[in-house]
Amino acid sequence: MVPTPANADLKIAVIGGGTGSFTLLSGLKEYTSSLTALVNMADDGGSTGLLRDELGVLPPGDVRQCLVALSDAPKLRDLFNYRFEEGSLKGHAFGNLFLTALEKMTGDFAEGVEVAAEVLNISGRVDPITLTNVTLMMKTKSHGEVKGEFLIGESDLGGERPEMWLEPEAGLNPKAQTAIKEADIVVIAPGNLYGSLAPALIVPGVGEALAASKALKVYICNLVTKPGQTDGYSVSDFASEIERLAGRDFLDAVVFNTRQPDKNLLKKYAGAGELAVAYDMAKLENASYQAFGADLLAGTIWENTSKSDPMAAARTLIRHDPIVTARSIIELYSNRTNED
Amino acid sequence: MVPTPANADLKIAVIGGGTGSFTLLSGLKEYTSSLTALVNMADDGGSTGLLRDELGVLPPGDVRQCLVALSDAPKLRDLFNYRFEEGSLKGHAFGNLFLTALEKMTGDFAEGVEVAAEVLNISGRVDPITLTNVTLMMKTKSHGEVKGEFLIGESDLGGERPEMWLEPEAGLNPKAQTAIKEADIVVIAPGNLYGSLAPALIVPGVGEALAASKALKVYICNLVTKPGQTDGYSVSDFASEIERLAGRDFLDAVVFNTRQPDKNLLKKYAGAGELAVAYDMAKLENASYQAFGADLLAGTIWENTSKSDPMAAARTLIRHDPIVTARSIIELYSNRTNED
Repeated sequence: MVPTPANADLKIAVIGGGTGSFTLLSGLKEYTSSLTALVNMADDGGSTGLLRDELGVLPPGDVRQCLVALSDAPKLRDLFNYRFEEGSLKGHAFGNLFLTALEKMTGDFAEGVEVAAEVLNISGRVDPITLTNVTLMMKTKSHGEVKGEFLIGESDLGGERPEMWLEPEAGLNPKAQTAIKEADIVVIAPGNLYGSLAPALIVPGVGEALAASKALKVYICNLVTKPGQTDGYSVSDFASEIERLAGRDFLDAVVFNTRQPDKNLLKKYAGAGELAVAYDMAKLENASYQAFGADLLAGTIWENTSKSDPMAAARTLIRHDPIVTARSIIELYSNRTNED
Repeated sequence: MVPTPANADLKIAVIGGGTGSFTLLSGLKEYTSSLTALVNMADDGGSTGLLRDELGVLPPGDVRQCLVALSDAPKLRDLFNYRFEEGSLKGHAFGNLFLTALEKMTGDFAEGVEVAAEVLNISGRVDPITLTNVTLMMKTKSHGEVKGEFLIGESDLGGERPEMWLEPEAGLNPKAQTAIKEADIVVIAPGNLYGSLAPALIVPGVGEALAASKALKVYICNLVTKPGQTDGYSVSDFASEIERLAGRDFLDAVVFNTRQPDKNLLKKYAGAGELAVAYDMAKLENASYQAFGADLLAGTIWENTSKSDPMAAARTLIRHDPIVTARSIIELYSNRTNED
């Protein structure tokens, strides 16, 4: 897969969390050196959650994944993603400890990110969407208030579209605001809608910044639904929730996958309650944004590295192809520019 | 303190453990860029001991200190020495976690050291004296066998000169052997004689390598005695124990301090059983090595960073001055060369 010619000056900001941003950044970095990852800062599960609980630091996990995506230092990339497997360090990703130690040492999470960025020799920038130490909050009729990203991600919403906010009220990181303002393209990454995209989109000021920015604003729609959370959501449902959470209709384009994944694979996913996201072309043609369907699936067979999770092998198979997805974004932008 | 002109090509190897090697390397790096730290690998206390116990890795602590001494990256130096203060990570120096994660990831401690050396932008090299996962062993009449560097360091020897060995038998790291062979100067750093220098000197092959090397071999004698271990040891006692442990008479020179530390300071040290090391000039003049006495004390007041240890402030005050001590070594070498 050879990228189309790069426009190294194209300023692209990617808003999201961990895996979805990782995929997009990995692809987009082949097209530009002016990438900025704006990262959700409400994660409170796993290694990240333990570090927040014990040391009161900001969540390092998603920032780490974005740094790794943009890194040009193979050994250190692997080191940052290395997880200890035994003893009292078990489960901690090394990169999380790196960011945590720097934050504790300097008292400044953002400075830690800068040092990590230098060590990892990244192209582009990684900026937390907020530097406030926030907790994600959700309210639904059936659950009342639910506190914390991990629990929210586990909640069965039964089709309800939840009210969501951050506590305490988050301040938009000025560097994130600038990145959105100055971008040529802002991409909303695919990801867990309420657990991972919401905490970035609901930071006060993000919706306003998106609406005010002259960038092309594109959402890369999820490939499958999440059981209990987005069951039955079509492409337009995802898009309208993205805009509802940001409090603004800001999307210029939505890119969605049109290729059906392999039948056996779909069966495995269906067994776990995950279904391919449907699209209704008639509806999408009348949307306020341009809907762009394409074959976005990765053809590569990913390795199952988690013995404890038999779904992992299958789950990694329905993934966005980083290069193809990135190219679709660049093409959308080029076409728009040419039409102007 | 301005260094005398450097001889950037002078090959110097420093054998030792943590703090003593740190001091010497910090000074010597002003005089040459061809420094090699050869590090004791039997440490089993504190953060290092816990990582060895839980993860089966080689001891990172002393290697970390030597890397930091040779580093030219201020922020990363501080990060490597940063210790977590709370939670399940409490007590771990970040640099120890760095070396441990790399060893677990690559299966090769030496490769981890290379990566750390690159990240820390060190001048010179740091090589473990052995890559065998060893335990320090000691035998005395009063204690029988004592296992492990930490316990050995705590044992009251009552004046006995202990039998010492490593289990399993250690292989001399070929890179350490080459460094000793090719050095212009080999320095034995000051340090805990039985707990820190012995485990380096008793590695099979070290004594032979030292005896065979054409380098100037210098021991920088400790400043104070250690209660229960080296009580009453004079400069010549330390030197003869160094040679006994290495199994060879190899020393060309011993550098010792002649300035009495401040009286109040000495009192504090005496309260903890630590006395200034005495020297008998008549005896030293007849020694098989050249004895070189000088004012080696650091004049700087060091900061007490340990609230839990009221001795820390005092203890840090009787220290070798890195530059003065390094210069004394360089001068010894220059004089010898001129006499040739």
